[in-house]
Amino acid sequence: MSILVVGSMAYDTIETPHGKAESAIGGSVSYFALAARFFSPVSIVAAIGTDFRDEDVRIFAERAIDIRGVTRRDGPTFRWHGRYHEDMNIRDTVSVALNVFADFSPDLLPDQRRSDYVFLANIAPELQAHVLAQVASPKVVAADTMNLWINNERPALVALLPRIGILTLNDEEARMLSGEHNLVKAGRALLRMGPRTVLIKRGEYGVLQFSQDGMFAVPAYPLEEVVDPTGAGDTFAGAFMGFIARRGGLSESALRTAVVYGSVMASFAVERFSIDGLARLAWEDIDARYRAFIELTDSHHSRWTSQ
Amino acid sequence: MSILVVGSMAYDTIETPHGKAESAIGGSVSYFALAARFFSPVSIVAAIGTDFRDEDVRIFAERAIDIRGVTRRDGPTFRWHGRYHEDMNIRDTVSVALNVFADFSPDLLPDQRRSDYVFLANIAPELQAHVLAQVASPKVVAADTMNLWINNERPALVALLPRIGILTLNDEEARMLSGEHNLVKAGRALLRMGPRTVLIKRGEYGVLQFSQDGMFAVPAYPLEEVVDPTGAGDTFAGAFMGFIARRGGLSESALRTAVVYGSVMASFAVERFSIDGLARLAWEDIDARYRAFIELTDSHHSRWTSQ
Repeated sequence: MSILVVGSMAYDTIETPHGKAESAIGGSVSYFALAARFFSPVSIVAAIGTDFRDEDVRIFAERAIDIRGVTRRDGPTFRWHGRYHEDMNIRDTVSVALNVFADFSPDLLPDQRRSDYVFLANIAPELQAHVLAQVASPKVVAADTMNLWINNERPALVALLPRIGILTLNDEEARMLSGEHNLVKAGRALLRMGPRTVLIKRGEYGVLQFSQDGMFAVPAYPLEEVVDPTGAGDTFAGAFMGFIARRGGLSESALRTAVVYGSVMASFAVERFSIDGLARLAWEDIDARYRAFIELTDSHHSRWTSQ
Repeated sequence: MSILVVGSMAYDTIETPHGKAESAIGGSVSYFALAARFFSPVSIVAAIGTDFRDEDVRIFAERAIDIRGVTRRDGPTFRWHGRYHEDMNIRDTVSVALNVFADFSPDLLPDQRRSDYVFLANIAPELQAHVLAQVASPKVVAADTMNLWINNERPALVALLPRIGILTLNDEEARMLSGEHNLVKAGRALLRMGPRTVLIKRGEYGVLQFSQDGMFAVPAYPLEEVVDPTGAGDTFAGAFMGFIARRGGLSESALRTAVVYGSVMASFAVERFSIDGLARLAWEDIDARYRAFIELTDSHHSRWTSQ
């Protein structure tokens, strides 16, 4: 089943202890779509500027990602400049220029309005609601958010939560939105605010999933070298939603497998700058790391009890 | 099979955001033995002072822990006073008084010299070597260490590593000892220094195991309330070694199950001050949380592929 994703496409300048990328492809839907497309068809809704290179548009089009909803508008593309510390869990935003993204307010295409799977990437909650209102009868709606909206747009965000099935956010954001410092309490409080599933992203420490059926915890795939953490969360969400759409349901088993695929894809994203870790990936790479991930986290419980 | 453990018994004063415990039972072997005894017989080697209360000695004796190697000496017991921050990953040492522990240099009892399973808790590497030299032909030797010895006693510690099978240490210590910031590189570098298995303890983020057969990662059991993190690592080591001794081998499967039991027991330890989370525990509690831990980390992989 096809997934509709709405959010940003950007040019990022990224500095990490491993080097620097300038005016490289970024934005939440870029990472999301390049991960999700391995599992399900993806249809993007985003805005780009006159400076967005045709060859960069082709990266998506050549991978069978539906870009009819990517509108080119007068002005420059959304730009973000970030600098990671030696401890790459910490980053500073050097500059942000919203540019053509500033008055982004998309109208969906007729077929997009019939989407079953919707991902509202990290944009203002009112804009997320504006897009969601255009979708006739979605089966699964997931949304991401960030500290900016939790602080400045809390009423709109809180109003959105009962209308979404899955919320993704990082640990600090989970604490801010729930008012609970303890992550178990935070996850359970967020479930009471609306979503049936809450995914707390903890960066290099993995993901905690809270659902009606309980908790699921996975570590991040341990890597010898993390080059650029940008886009890890959106990549995770892309593979997660891609698997859910392909599988066609929200059983606990489907959710857990989706979390593992999300973690696997995020591990590829951070191994290179920008989208380079995702763009050249083959299914064989994903399958091999999925198996390695299962082996990494398999407690061998069944082998033990059978002896 | 019986386990020999050598290290400290102490009176701790502990301040956390949840309260304060004064002159409460502490020390590495106290936590270790109270966790290991659920799996295997344990024989303690430690020193206590004249102030160590008889009722506190009985806590161990009544739980069938062998305390013949706990020698009472003139002077006060080792005392530690720690204060945890609001973020309980960070703590300050308010004071330490080695007292009778200062010239601790134990001679093992004849039967202790025939131990198959040995845990050298966090004491000076030369003292660890002094004890190990007295054991005739141990099957499995594990050792813990800390930043103090890595900084001040590196040659003695490095000399010890080829003589032990299992090294436990936390993430910062793994970085210091290996010289590698990346934990995957650190784990592999530590394997090259001697031990066949390296367990990197990451506190609330779980444990990373490096062995000849690869990596194993588990999260910590997510708790609604962590009251006192003191002793979590020693508790982990106690249950880990207890299971290994009971199982009688170091297969990858045994190691992984031991890591899970270690994580389960550590989760009980941090729910109350001092040893209170361990002292009153029944096997039914451990078994229930072990099942919950398996469910927490089970990716449902087999259920998915079978569909």
